[in-house]
Amino acid sequence: MVGRVKQASIISIGNEVLSGHTVDTNAAYIERQLRLIGVPTASSYTVADLQPAIVRALRLAAEEADIVIATGGLGPTDDDLTREGFAEFLGVELELREDLLVRISEMFQRRGVPMVRKNAGQARIPKGADVVPNEWGTAPGIVAEKDGKVFFALPGVPREMEQMLAASVLPRLRAVAPSQAVVVRRLRCFGAGESTIAEMIGDAMLRDHNPLVNCTAHTGVITLEIVATTQTVAEAENLAQCQETRLRGLLGPLVYGVGEETLAEVVGRQLQRQGKTLAVAESCTGGLLAKLITDVPGASRYFTRGWVTYSNEAKIDELGVPPELIARHGAVSEEVAQAMARGARARAGTDYAIGITGIAGPDGGTDEKPVGLVYVCSDFEGQVHTVRQVFPWERSYVRLRAAQTALDILRRGLDR
Amino acid sequence: MVGRVKQASIISIGNEVLSGHTVDTNAAYIERQLRLIGVPTASSYTVADLQPAIVRALRLAAEEADIVIATGGLGPTDDDLTREGFAEFLGVELELREDLLVRISEMFQRRGVPMVRKNAGQARIPKGADVVPNEWGTAPGIVAEKDGKVFFALPGVPREMEQMLAASVLPRLRAVAPSQAVVVRRLRCFGAGESTIAEMIGDAMLRDHNPLVNCTAHTGVITLEIVATTQTVAEAENLAQCQETRLRGLLGPLVYGVGEETLAEVVGRQLQRQGKTLAVAESCTGGLLAKLITDVPGASRYFTRGWVTYSNEAKIDELGVPPELIARHGAVSEEVAQAMARGARARAGTDYAIGITGIAGPDGGTDEKPVGLVYVCSDFEGQVHTVRQVFPWERSYVRLRAAQTALDILRRGLDR
Repeated sequence: MVGRVKQASIISIGNEVLSGHTVDTNAAYIERQLRLIGVPTASSYTVADLQPAIVRALRLAAEEADIVIATGGLGPTDDDLTREGFAEFLGVELELREDLLVRISEMFQRRGVPMVRKNAGQARIPKGADVVPNEWGTAPGIVAEKDGKVFFALPGVPREMEQMLAASVLPRLRAVAPSQAVVVRRLRCFGAGESTIAEMIGDAMLRDHNPLVNCTAHTGVITLEIVATTQTVAEAENLAQCQETRLRGLLGPLVYGVGEETLAEVVGRQLQRQGKTLAVAESCTGGLLAKLITDVPGASRYFTRGWVTYSNEAKIDELGVPPELIARHGAVSEEVAQAMARGARARAGTDYAIGITGIAGPDGGTDEKPVGLVYVCSDFEGQVHTVRQVFPWERSYVRLRAAQTALDILRRGLDR
Repeated sequence: MVGRVKQASIISIGNEVLSGHTVDTNAAYIERQLRLIGVPTASSYTVADLQPAIVRALRLAAEEADIVIATGGLGPTDDDLTREGFAEFLGVELELREDLLVRISEMFQRRGVPMVRKNAGQARIPKGADVVPNEWGTAPGIVAEKDGKVFFALPGVPREMEQMLAASVLPRLRAVAPSQAVVVRRLRCFGAGESTIAEMIGDAMLRDHNPLVNCTAHTGVITLEIVATTQTVAEAENLAQCQETRLRGLLGPLVYGVGEETLAEVVGRQLQRQGKTLAVAESCTGGLLAKLITDVPGASRYFTRGWVTYSNEAKIDELGVPPELIARHGAVSEEVAQAMARGARARAGTDYAIGITGIAGPDGGTDEKPVGLVYVCSDFEGQVHTVRQVFPWERSYVRLRAAQTALDILRRGLDR
C-alpha cells in the first residue's frame, strides 16, 4: 500500500527577498529536488525578518504540509531571527551548543580571520532540536519534529543551502517519503498558441490525471510537462511513455523536441546529421537569427556565415538584391525576402539559406504594411518558399518570433 | 500627517512555479515597483492551481495587507482557476462579459488565427469586479474591493503583467499611497566588478542611510540604485541628486547611463548626435553584437550592416581578411580582429567599425589561446585599436561580455 503522499511547504525568510532586491531562486531549487524524490510542494511563503511573521508562516505551513523547509535568517546579524522564530514555534528556549561554538571558531581560525562576538549567536539552537551541518559557512542548520511533522531551517546562501539539502535533508526525507517513483518528461512545441494546444490534447490536463500534464508558454514555445507517479520507476516510465506517445499523436509536427531543447539545437542536429550547411540574411531581426543559431556549441560545423543588411544598399551590395525590386515592392516584401535568401545561398555556397525582412517597429508601419509584418523566405537547394506573418506585439517580441519562425521553417523542412 | 503605511501582499499562482520549473520573477518585480510608490510588501505566497489553495491565500493575504496582487492562473486552460478563486473569495458568481468576449475575439481576428472555445472562458470575471485591461494578451485582469482592501488578479506572463501594473495598478495605488515622497535614481556602470565598485563608493551602501544605495549586478552591468525618501518630492529629488553627483565623482567613466539604459542605447544616441555610421564584423559573438545594436528602435539611422563570418572562408570572402594572416596567426588573433574591422569599414563605407574574434567554447581552447579569449578591434575613421580579454565563463556569458566590451569601447571612444 502506498501511504498518503507527503507534501512539503517552503518558507523564504528575508527582507531582501520581499523588497524585490533579490529574486528567490532557493524555493524553486528545493521544489525541484523534492519533486525528484516524490514529494510535491503544496505552497511556499516569503516573509520578512520579523519573529511574528516567521512563527505565523511556520504555523500556516504546518497546516498543509508534513515537511517544512525554511531558508534564510540564520546569519550573525541582529536582523537574523529564524532561530528565535523556530524556538517560539516549537515552544522551547534557545540553548548555546558548545560543540557548535567550537566549530564556528575553528572556521574563523582556518580562514585567518578573527571571530566577532555576533557569530557566537549562531551556535544557539532550539532545545531538543538537531543540527544540520553546514560545510561551507558558519551558520548551522536546524531540524526539529513537532506533531509528527519535520521542520528544517537552512541558510539563504544558495551554495550552503544546496550542500546541506543534498547531504542531510534529502537523505532524511527519502527515508520517510512513500515508496513512489516520479518520472518527468517535457515535450517542446512551436507553431500554435497555448489555448490551441490545450484544445488539441483534450482532457489530458485535468487535475486528477496520472500522468499529470502541465502546460507553460514562454516566448512562443509551449512546454507540456508529463509527470507520472507510481510504485516503481519502470511503471512510471511506462505511464509517461504512453502519455507522450498519445500527445505526440495528437500534436503531430507541433512537437519539435524534448527536455530543455531549443529550436536552434534541433535544427543544428538535423543539419549535422544530413551534412548540410546554412547561411542567413537578416534585416528586421538584425542578427538575432544568427545569434540563436550560434548559441549552440559546434554551430560552425553547419553555419558558415550571415549578413545583417539593415539598409537597402547593404541588401543590394551584399546579397545582390536588384534595386528595382526594392523600388517596386519595397524592402519589406515577399520579393525582397526571396532575393535575400537566394542571394545568401549563392554568395555563401551553402545548401540552405534564410532571408528575413519585416517591420519590427515601433515606427515604420503603414495600413498596408503594419508594424509586425514579417516575410521569411527559405531557399532549400534552390526551392524557395516564403511565409508572411503579422506579429501584433512590440519590437523585441516581433524580432524573436520572426527568428523562431525561420528556425521552425528550417526544422519542418529538414524533417522531410 | 502621514497616514498608516499601506502594506501589500503578493500571491503567485501556478503549478509551474511550485514545481520549481519556473523561477518566480514576477513577485520580485512587483515588490520593487510597489516600493517605488512607498508601499512595502509584508509577505508573499505561492500556491498551486487549486481553487481552495487560491481562496486560502487570498484570505491569509487580506489578514496582513491592504493591497493584494495575484499573478497567474488567468489563462484559457482547465488548470487556470484564479477567476474561480477570486469569485469564491469575494462571495459572488462569475459572469460572462460580452465586451471582453468581443475584445478577445478581435485579438484573434487581428492575428488571423481562429479563436478556440476555451478562450471564451477568459471573458468571465467575478460579478461586481472591474477589468484591468491587458494590452498584450487575451487574459483580462481583475480588480475588486472587499472590506476596504483592494485585490488584483494579473496574468503570469511577465510582459503582460508588467504592462498592466504600469498602466492600471500603480496609478490606482498611487492615489491611496501615503503622502511620502520616494525618488529613485539608477546609475548604470560597466567596466568593473561589483566588489570593486562597492569599495570605490565606500560607506554609501550602509543600511540606515538616506538616500539608500543598493547595488545589483546583472550580466556585467552594475546598477547602483539611489532611493531617497522624505516628505516632499523636491526634497527627495535634492537628496538623490547630491548622492548621484557624489557617486559619479567617485566612479568617473564607469558610469555609462541612467535608469534602464543599455550600452547599445547610449552608443546609438552618441552616433546619432555625431551623425556617424557603424558596421560590425563578428565571429565568436555570431550576430549578438548586431542584435544588441538593433534592439534599439531607429538603429537603421546609424547602423547599416553587419557580417557573421563564422568560417575562415567567410572572413576572406566578405571582409577581405588575407588568408595568409589567418594561416600565420590563426583566426583568433589581434591581426585577424584588425583585418575584420578594417574590412568591414571599407566594405560598408561607414565611419566606424568593430571586428570581434574569439573562442566562445566549450571546445576549441588551447593553453596559449584558452576558451574565453576574445579580441575586439575598433576602427574609428582609420584609427584602429584592439583589446584582448579572457572571460573565464561559459559560452553564452563569454559571448555576451565580448559584445558588451565592443559596445563599451564604442561608448568610451565616442565620448571623447
